[in-house]
Amino acid sequence: MKETVLSGIRPTGNLHLGNYFGALSKFIRMQDDYNCMYFLADLHALTTHPDPKMLHENVRGIMAEYLAAGLDPEKVTLFVQSDVPEISEMYLLLNMHVGIGELMRTTSFKDKARKALGLNRDDNESDADFEHQIIGSETNKRVNAGLLTYPTLMAVDILIQKAHKVPVGKDQEQHLELTRRFARRFNSFYGVDLFPEPVNFNFTGEAIKVPGLDGSGKMGKSEGNCIYLIDDEKTLRKKVMRAVTDEGPKVPNSPVSEPIKNLFMLMELASTPDTLQHFRDAYADCSIRYGDLKKQLAEDLLKITTPIRQRIEEIKADEAFMGRVLRQGAERARENAAKTLAEVREIMGIRKFY
Amino acid sequence: MKETVLSGIRPTGNLHLGNYFGALSKFIRMQDDYNCMYFLADLHALTTHPDPKMLHENVRGIMAEYLAAGLDPEKVTLFVQSDVPEISEMYLLLNMHVGIGELMRTTSFKDKARKALGLNRDDNESDADFEHQIIGSETNKRVNAGLLTYPTLMAVDILIQKAHKVPVGKDQEQHLELTRRFARRFNSFYGVDLFPEPVNFNFTGEAIKVPGLDGSGKMGKSEGNCIYLIDDEKTLRKKVMRAVTDEGPKVPNSPVSEPIKNLFMLMELASTPDTLQHFRDAYADCSIRYGDLKKQLAEDLLKITTPIRQRIEEIKADEAFMGRVLRQGAERARENAAKTLAEVREIMGIRKFY
Repeated sequence: MKETVLSGIRPTGNLHLGNYFGALSKFIRMQDDYNCMYFLADLHALTTHPDPKMLHENVRGIMAEYLAAGLDPEKVTLFVQSDVPEISEMYLLLNMHVGIGELMRTTSFKDKARKALGLNRDDNESDADFEHQIIGSETNKRVNAGLLTYPTLMAVDILIQKAHKVPVGKDQEQHLELTRRFARRFNSFYGVDLFPEPVNFNFTGEAIKVPGLDGSGKMGKSEGNCIYLIDDEKTLRKKVMRAVTDEGPKVPNSPVSEPIKNLFMLMELASTPDTLQHFRDAYADCSIRYGDLKKQLAEDLLKITTPIRQRIEEIKADEAFMGRVLRQGAERARENAAKTLAEVREIMGIRKFY
Repeated sequence: MKETVLSGIRPTGNLHLGNYFGALSKFIRMQDDYNCMYFLADLHALTTHPDPKMLHENVRGIMAEYLAAGLDPEKVTLFVQSDVPEISEMYLLLNMHVGIGELMRTTSFKDKARKALGLNRDDNESDADFEHQIIGSETNKRVNAGLLTYPTLMAVDILIQKAHKVPVGKDQEQHLELTRRFARRFNSFYGVDLFPEPVNFNFTGEAIKVPGLDGSGKMGKSEGNCIYLIDDEKTLRKKVMRAVTDEGPKVPNSPVSEPIKNLFMLMELASTPDTLQHFRDAYADCSIRYGDLKKQLAEDLLKITTPIRQRIEEIKADEAFMGRVLRQGAERARENAAKTLAEVREIMGIRKFY
């Protein structure tokens, strides 16, 4: 049997080329080798009170982008978290075995709680000060119980599917560690062997770095340096033409500055080797014109994004298709989840009378 | 339309005469005048990790006792909390609007958290000390997130049924106040008028005091002073014969001591006015023999408990009946709950794609 890989997607913002060449292209390559389950984490998003008018459209948008980029709903299980009520049921049950101390000590909770209360990180602040601020706060600003129990919910997402592998970044490693702890604790408290301990999924091969357009750092670090899959031709060309460069090489074989390195890296991802070589040579002999390079880069990026953008529009317009995909995904996810939930209820002593 | 009265029953211990003459007889009298919903709070019970082997049997026992004592499943909605998954769903959603500070400041949480950690109440202890002990605890003893969010779950029990009246004792008044606060907050945050604010149900008429058998205080204060509905003849007689008394009146018209007052009060509930008067007179002229009084009291109590005890046994043995009652109750409760949950989801922006 194939191992289950599970990953949650936050319904915030549109996908950019960094997501595409980074996570998404890996998701697509994995879909033949693993039992892949990807879900839109709309319940997690509620911890920060998104605009109710936007939530559904954001979910639709992201789903359309994932499908357009190449996720095959016949191969992967694609679902919306809130379509699986078993997750909420198990979240309540697991909360009985999760300590509020261990939740409050997670880095991500502390950061988000500070943000919710409008506090700055004070290096001299003791744990007790911090706790007191969170608990004692009499202002209208609240740290909500959903935020505190985020790790419970994330653990349930994983454990209810008995997922083996979860690709998470550095910021989520602590939560995955908590998930393993909760799994061990449940198994040992009830003397059962129900939950496997999930591990971080390490993609094989080199990590692909996708630089942004502002001369430093990776794409996605700030709004301005991103090319989105849904950017239209005009927007994409304008963004590339405005990418940060330098004054150009003055002497042959000059070292390449970071902004120009970044443009070459993007070209490496989007253009043919010949094209890349042509501009590298032009840089080396000082004949390069950045305007030409950018024009070519924009052209080659459009070759990637245009068909995706068109599919995004098609999928967004086809409500019946999206409905079919998400219904099928929810059915598969619920089948699994209901089975685990039934086991958890039985173990905890909850039985029906009918 | 009838107002909805909702009350949760903890699946702990058997019903005694104090419960019967106190809450239960009122529940029974209310069933014609209100839309009564009574549920077995098995999810709440999980906060203290009951023995999984016992939980189901405890629920069965209490349900049988309520039915045997006179709750009519055609008139009231009788259900098990865990049979209504909509409650868990709304619990997760409401947690997004509940502050952990306000949860930690409730008296009942503080008491239960201290108990869970094995701490004594220290009058000099500051809030900060207490918080630190709860959060910082590195021992195996944990204060679980289910305990912390108990008020969220209780609020959901009430709000998901849009109950108007909730009969609660002193210890639960703070939780009912929180429920009102959460209802107002949700209504105002989303600019809706979804939840009515539930009020404490005040039974009309005098409160019925049912004394215990140990000479002081009310029945139920300690294990030893209780007569349970399921006590068999021999047990009941033995308990009554062992009830605390005094040395007996030495001079006519002596004042009546508390233990004897208690026996008269029980007689007032169980015996005919003539019988009561007979023993009151015998007390006044010093001819009373407590053994006779107790024998008569046991006889009269048995007239009440014996038919109930027999019905309890019949109901417990009739699994199909219990199944029908609880299925019907769950269906009614779920119909209501699903409607409210759909409204809550829509208001928060969660919509299905299919």
